Amino acid sequence: MTKVTAQMSLSLDGFYAGPSFLGDSTDVIGWMTSPEALGFFRVTRWVTDALAWRERQGFAGGEESINSAIVEESFESAGAYVMGRRMFDGGEIPWGDEPPFRAPVFVVTHRPHEVVERAGGTSFTFVTDGVEQAVKLARKAARGKDVAVAGGGTMLRHAMQRGLVDELEVHIVPVVLGDGQRLFDVSLNLADDEGIELTPLRVVGSPEVTHLRYAVAGSRTLVLDDRGRGDE
Amino acid sequence: MTKVTAQMSLSLDGFYAGPSFLGDSTDVIGWMTSPEALGFFRVTRWVTDALAWRERQGFAGGEESINSAIVEESFESAGAYVMGRRMFDGGEIPWGDEPPFRAPVFVVTHRPHEVVERAGGTSFTFVTDGVEQAVKLARKAARGKDVAVAGGGTMLRHAMQRGLVDELEVHIVPVVLGDGQRLFDVSLNLADDEGIELTPLRVVGSPEVTHLRYAVAGSRTLVLDDRGRGDE
Repeated sequence: MTKVTAQMSLSLDGFYAGPSFLGDSTDVIGWMTSPEALGFFRVTRWVTDALAWRERQGFAGGEESINSAIVEESFESAGAYVMGRRMFDGGEIPWGDEPPFRAPVFVVTHRPHEVVERAGGTSFTFVTDGVEQAVKLARKAARGKDVAVAGGGTMLRHAMQRGLVDELEVHIVPVVLGDGQRLFDVSLNLADDEGIELTPLRVVGSPEVTHLRYAVAGSRTLVLDDRGRGDE
Repeated sequence: MTKVTAQMSLSLDGFYAGPSFLGDSTDVIGWMTSPEALGFFRVTRWVTDALAWRERQGFAGGEESINSAIVEESFESAGAYVMGRRMFDGGEIPWGDEPPFRAPVFVVTHRPHEVVERAGGTSFTFVTDGVEQAVKLARKAARGKDVAVAGGGTMLRHAMQRGLVDELEVHIVPVVLGDGQRLFDVSLNLADDEGIELTPLRVVGSPEVTHLRYAVAGSRTLVLDDRGRGDE
């Protein structure tokens, strides 16, 4: 059964990158030296160190570790991807001629664009009628594997908000960044008495990062819980 | 060796309570029905369900579980506590004549106040010259056990900021609250290229909560990490 999965590397205080880069999103060099990138590189270091990631990128070196196994599992389970336009713009150049996805990628955007075919099985299809439609197309393309919401943070938050995500995995990196871009912020627009309830599925620890996987049960009303009283 | 420890229950998005209650901090009934309390009760439910906590409060019932064992461990390891004034104000009435601490508590406040002695070994000493001094007094009073920074969030953040915390444990509750009071926010005042680095010490999972314990390595400069390149 195809599930919609999402994952993101976060600092302990919930940031996936430093404060927003204000330059052009295609200015890769400017971005690379920005505070946004400093935070991003810190929280994704465990990925760039992983053998499974480096192999996909065609890079030498890398560590064979539980973290690498988790990267590999993510790649293997995904039959199609959904991503935001800003992630595509930032990634197109560094991903090169043979991007690491090796599967159809559906990019949610306001700007129509022809399909981009790349070597190794990756294609980028541009979807202009919203994230629901992108997930629908990705489900068909996934051939029984999972649909992975690849990011960025805004896209993942939109997908969570719309109840589209079945499983969420956060990779919690042991650092407090203090400021930056949060996966979850007030733009989730939950009411004061509302929360998105999750069910823990798996916890994997390592010195570099802690992997927490959850099933997303969905939005629920928070109730005044008086179990803290003595008169039960 | 006495360590300074801190712990807090947080939603996956980093909140220890709902949005701030704007009433008087001694208005326990008003607070109990506020959005702040809704969030607080959700993230501390695993504690109020725990046998070890209920026993300390003199309450019936409770679950004997790994979570209860962790509550018990926290109580046993603390020889003295440091807390903020607002936590004391909110807790004084519900904690009653025999508060659960059973140890000296040092309350950081701007308002001088005589020592409050309670049954069961708890005393509240009011410290008007800052959190460093409160920690210093608590170290002496702890008789070789740990000093626990009990909260609230503002006090814990101040202690982290000043490098006073040796070990931090966060209890991550499987819920996204969307808004409320964060343990870590921009008032940490870290520079864009600065992070507080941590070292994972222990991970304990349960269906209700995931316990992540860290040694606090302290503030470090983030460096542009080019290990993601292929030409090494």
